Amino acid sequence: MANDTNVTWHDHRVSREERERLHGHRGCVIWFTGLSGSGKSTIANVVDHMLAARGVKSAVLDGDNVRHGLNAGPGMLRESHGEAYAERFGLGFSAIDREENIRRIGAVAQLFCESGTIALTAFISPYRLDRDRVRAMMREGDFIEVFVDTPLEICEQRDPKGLYKKARAGEIKHFTGIDDPYEAPETPELVVCAGERTPEELATEVIDYLMKREILSAAG
Amino acid sequence: MANDTNVTWHDHRVSREERERLHGHRGCVIWFTGLSGSGKSTIANVVDHMLAARGVKSAVLDGDNVRHGLNAGPGMLRESHGEAYAERFGLGFSAIDREENIRRIGAVAQLFCESGTIALTAFISPYRLDRDRVRAMMREGDFIEVFVDTPLEICEQRDPKGLYKKARAGEIKHFTGIDDPYEAPETPELVVCAGERTPEELATEVIDYLMKREILSAAG
Repeated sequence: MANDTNVTWHDHRVSREERERLHGHRGCVIWFTGLSGSGKSTIANVVDHMLAARGVKSAVLDGDNVRHGLNAGPGMLRESHGEAYAERFGLGFSAIDREENIRRIGAVAQLFCESGTIALTAFISPYRLDRDRVRAMMREGDFIEVFVDTPLEICEQRDPKGLYKKARAGEIKHFTGIDDPYEAPETPELVVCAGERTPEELATEVIDYLMKREILSAAG
Repeated sequence: MANDTNVTWHDHRVSREERERLHGHRGCVIWFTGLSGSGKSTIANVVDHMLAARGVKSAVLDGDNVRHGLNAGPGMLRESHGEAYAERFGLGFSAIDREENIRRIGAVAQLFCESGTIALTAFISPYRLDRDRVRAMMREGDFIEVFVDTPLEICEQRDPKGLYKKARAGEIKHFTGIDDPYEAPETPELVVCAGERTPEELATEVIDYLMKREILSAAG
């Protein structure tokens, strides 16, 4: 190994553009935001299916795969790493902890995007500042904010996890839409209204947008 | 949208197996560990090139793309998020902070792996316990530990970033191999000796291992 291998290390990298050329599509982050029960995860997963069927590289980040690992809470970390560690690094639900939750998800989505993957994230992400900070991390055009604009009444009627019921009963505090605000995006790339349409119809709107933006090619 | 779309949400997921079938290869984590200057990043990037040339989906995680985003230090976070935030969440170089650094990288590598990608990580990761905890997060067989066993004298002679010089001069404290231990893996999946061979030869050993393990197919 030559002495300068580490010095010229950057030359060895596969560039994002090269990876995108090999994949036949661009990387990006599709950031779904909306109330609990609005259909974010459902739509993200239908889009993911449609992308997989086209041979497009994609990945979904959501509470299920992030809260159990990367953004584990104090409870999980206490078991694996002990009390002091859990205290220092466990993410709770305070304002600042929620912000860090979103910041890390944004950073991971960016890593996927830079590897030429379409990252789909499905988190309530209620605060405009947090979402805008994630947007600001990315290269221009990489962050595609999709507002899943399902009315609160419909979300609450669905209440798939029974969370609204608990929030109304005061058993959960700071629940978005009930006693904590949801700040709708002012200029999202896309708004989908999940109240009256099927997840497949809404996912198709997302795919159409990706084609219009030439993130996907007509052939891909 | 039917009322039960969120309830049946899990059925909508693209399974890891389905994704791997579509990609034509399996996902895994190739965890390079070794001294600073041992050649981890160089080898990881050559493997990455070889994988890309085969149409295999891969991504490299290293200090460059992780310390500036996901695992940002207090300095970066102070600028973007203010003092209290930086204090709470910035990662430094204390033992516990280094452990959290490795834990998060492991969690992200796992997300890549679960999306059917071959994640290549290049971090000194000097402590056995930290690496074993990452291994324990993963499914059996997903974690491939590659010990880049370059002798300290060679690493120090190369000193691509001038860090050994600073460590010997006492300008950097707790530098692995100088005044902080490196705990070599006891039963790594692979050992590569970077002292006398080219990065291409070493990367080929890694590719051969992936074929032997049928993570890559002979055709792929």
